[in-house]
Amino acid sequence: MEPLALASFASVDRTDAVPLSKQLYRSMRDAIRAGRIPAGARLPSSRAAAAALSISRNTVVAAYDLLRAEGAIEARQGAAPRVLAVLPSRTRPAGSARPVALGPRGGAVAAPARAALYAAPSGWFMPGAPDERLFPRAAWARALRKAALLPHGPASGYADYAGRPSLRDALAARLATDRGLVVSAEQILVVSSAQAAFTLLAQVLAEPGDRALVEAPGYAGARASFAAAGLEALPIPVDAAGADITRAEGLARLAYVTPSNQYPLGVRMALHRREALADWARRSDAWIIEDDYDGEFHWRGRAVATLQSIAPDVTLYVGSAAKSLMPGLRLGWIAVPEPLVAPLREGVRNLGLGANLHAQAAFETFVDDGSWRAHIRRIAAAYSARGTLLADALEDRFGAAMEVSRPDGGLQLVARLSCLEAEDRAMAALGEAGFAVAALSRYGCGEPGPPGLVIGFADAEPALVDRFCAALAAAVR
Amino acid sequence: MEPLALASFASVDRTDAVPLSKQLYRSMRDAIRAGRIPAGARLPSSRAAAAALSISRNTVVAAYDLLRAEGAIEARQGAAPRVLAVLPSRTRPAGSARPVALGPRGGAVAAPARAALYAAPSGWFMPGAPDERLFPRAAWARALRKAALLPHGPASGYADYAGRPSLRDALAARLATDRGLVVSAEQILVVSSAQAAFTLLAQVLAEPGDRALVEAPGYAGARASFAAAGLEALPIPVDAAGADITRAEGLARLAYVTPSNQYPLGVRMALHRREALADWARRSDAWIIEDDYDGEFHWRGRAVATLQSIAPDVTLYVGSAAKSLMPGLRLGWIAVPEPLVAPLREGVRNLGLGANLHAQAAFETFVDDGSWRAHIRRIAAAYSARGTLLADALEDRFGAAMEVSRPDGGLQLVARLSCLEAEDRAMAALGEAGFAVAALSRYGCGEPGPPGLVIGFADAEPALVDRFCAALAAAVR
Repeated sequence: MEPLALASFASVDRTDAVPLSKQLYRSMRDAIRAGRIPAGARLPSSRAAAAALSISRNTVVAAYDLLRAEGAIEARQGAAPRVLAVLPSRTRPAGSARPVALGPRGGAVAAPARAALYAAPSGWFMPGAPDERLFPRAAWARALRKAALLPHGPASGYADYAGRPSLRDALAARLATDRGLVVSAEQILVVSSAQAAFTLLAQVLAEPGDRALVEAPGYAGARASFAAAGLEALPIPVDAAGADITRAEGLARLAYVTPSNQYPLGVRMALHRREALADWARRSDAWIIEDDYDGEFHWRGRAVATLQSIAPDVTLYVGSAAKSLMPGLRLGWIAVPEPLVAPLREGVRNLGLGANLHAQAAFETFVDDGSWRAHIRRIAAAYSARGTLLADALEDRFGAAMEVSRPDGGLQLVARLSCLEAEDRAMAALGEAGFAVAALSRYGCGEPGPPGLVIGFADAEPALVDRFCAALAAAVR
Repeated sequence: MEPLALASFASVDRTDAVPLSKQLYRSMRDAIRAGRIPAGARLPSSRAAAAALSISRNTVVAAYDLLRAEGAIEARQGAAPRVLAVLPSRTRPAGSARPVALGPRGGAVAAPARAALYAAPSGWFMPGAPDERLFPRAAWARALRKAALLPHGPASGYADYAGRPSLRDALAARLATDRGLVVSAEQILVVSSAQAAFTLLAQVLAEPGDRALVEAPGYAGARASFAAAGLEALPIPVDAAGADITRAEGLARLAYVTPSNQYPLGVRMALHRREALADWARRSDAWIIEDDYDGEFHWRGRAVATLQSIAPDVTLYVGSAAKSLMPGLRLGWIAVPEPLVAPLREGVRNLGLGANLHAQAAFETFVDDGSWRAHIRRIAAAYSARGTLLADALEDRFGAAMEVSRPDGGLQLVARLSCLEAEDRAMAALGEAGFAVAALSRYGCGEPGPPGLVIGFADAEPALVDRFCAALAAAVR
């Protein structure tokens, strides 16, 4: 078989920004794939091809190299390259979309679990969102720079997947002092967020079809993670003394609670409720997930002891740097009972839930040198002032007509409204005005919760508070 | 009821480092929990308690605050604090371990999937492990510092969970140029690792009980992720032209392949095999996961086009910074067909698989200013030299008795051994000598693969290569 006439299938265009070798390679590849060059055909030598196309021989060699590397041609020393057998070209054009139908699990994992909560996808007064302006940029930049310049040994690679050992030491010591945790460094696992922790715990500790008790009203993020794991969520009613396990119905493998500052109601779980919950877990062979999402900062009274400190045998304690530093750090931790350390560590690795090394090392500096604690004091004062400003303004404006919570900490408060219609009107007006507040009724599990608004105050400055009260008043009047 | 006599249950010790208020709080809490103080009992006023214990009134107030915050006592203005009803103390001492039995899903998520592969848990010549000494520390430290000093707006919070928009832009442009991807920025999702990508794709695109085709021999990490998602893995045989889908049996929802540099064999998938795979996926309504784990660096010929570039409609392309920079960065990306963008983005959020913000911003600098590409050229040269050194040394020492692969890129090569007994002897001796090489037979899916060693050469310096050859020779002679 004679060498093919190049011009019939190969083309290059000098005015195109794509390198000539790449153009040549693409045109030949397309011709082979389309069957315009038959299997077994001989290509011209690189010298002949270069002459035919008026390009350099190196360009042709580069294109042939790519074709050879892909297995489209066979090139032996001294012989003309030969086209290898290829399958008929695809029947469907590349790039065309095909319909996507997810199954039940896929649908649960990919559910837009939070979208319906908020008056706007982003905006002022979003519950749970810290103020980025309070992030200690300069100090963090210094700590990160130091972290990047250090050699990290095996921790830079695939070892220590569940956290730098020295950070786990530092966290164990700090959590014992500041949050009363009964824990060794070994029992601390570092993960990429509280959300990652919920995924890990739901997928390791429960089976698809198992039930998880969740606070109602309660945190949608945790519910999303449990739904992704195939768990059925059942409500634990919440009142002024926190979640009441004695009023929850049904057996369950897990109970998810926020005892230090219930999300979103802002109440604290009473000691007798904690004892009842621990007893329930022991009797039911179940686990408690304690989400201490902002347990570090409280401005009235002092920080409350954790549930883990009274029931370390049945409690999985979850914390993160999202509220005290920044959600974008993707840095969280879990304190786990000793028998679960090994399985959960493997789970972190298999699911891909580990945290960035340099963020871990920088955070370790912050924990060790007292910067974290000092920073928390600073932002707690700021958030306390903003929360008080907002609560006072709401009380001034609405008086007895609107019950406003005064949480001891955290980043959001709750304003109760008289009915779902009022909530709907408020959500529409506030979304329109740029406020990403959330509807309290939508925090329910199964049934709607009570009507009201969950209002973040991390960015509540006087001018915004005025604007917010005006928009709300116009809507609910 | 008279106030209780404090001395009967409250105690403080001035020689103890624990603050007095905390000591007082703890002793009272324990007494309440143990039932030694009955519900309804009145505590002494803070003034009386301070006098009785010879401590300051502020100390008592602080302890009472903590008890009140926990709901253990009720303190009203002007009235003596009163102990609230509490449940009987727990029947099981806190901290005692209870037996843990995981279910089938929990067991799969928590399986030590890689431990059996390696001759030692860590050590020299580990396959797939890059050399930390080549990490561009100073440049990364500068980029990280810059990233930490910037305000990031919504990306610092809970928005942009699947990646900074500007990094997705930069990656789409770079992957189109360097890897031939047919992709828009919108179609790039940034995640915390390739492992996170496998978890996401398996849990969104397949249902428990579905089948996934995986290369045999093939990558254990991907298999671990699929097993965690409840998928049954079936083998795709691999030969010198890569994975051969026509020899795989059974319907499947997913096929996992490493076309650019098959892991661990180091072969490239031929064009006709790629076409067959794409046709299979289109006919079977299945998805292809293309793991381009080290596709960026190749030192013989040029980088090969990706499977995604010829079948963007059915291919999920996965890349990461683990090999070219550092696994500890926990930074990976996926290029996905347009209809999957929205569901997969929600999946990243619900499962907690997002990447650290500052690492993303630093990497964006690296991609944009050419540092990444320049760094890859630099390390490809270093790894090429080390791989060649090791392959040459093995050929010199063992000649025709040992077939040694000469991959075009990557970080590991394969040395075939005559039988499983030889592999066992080699693994024992090399582990003993500090080498964390892997056993080729253990990369099989279901059945054992061929006997041999998978040997990382990222750290293959002359003295270590000599030591390695000597240990291996002693074992297999």
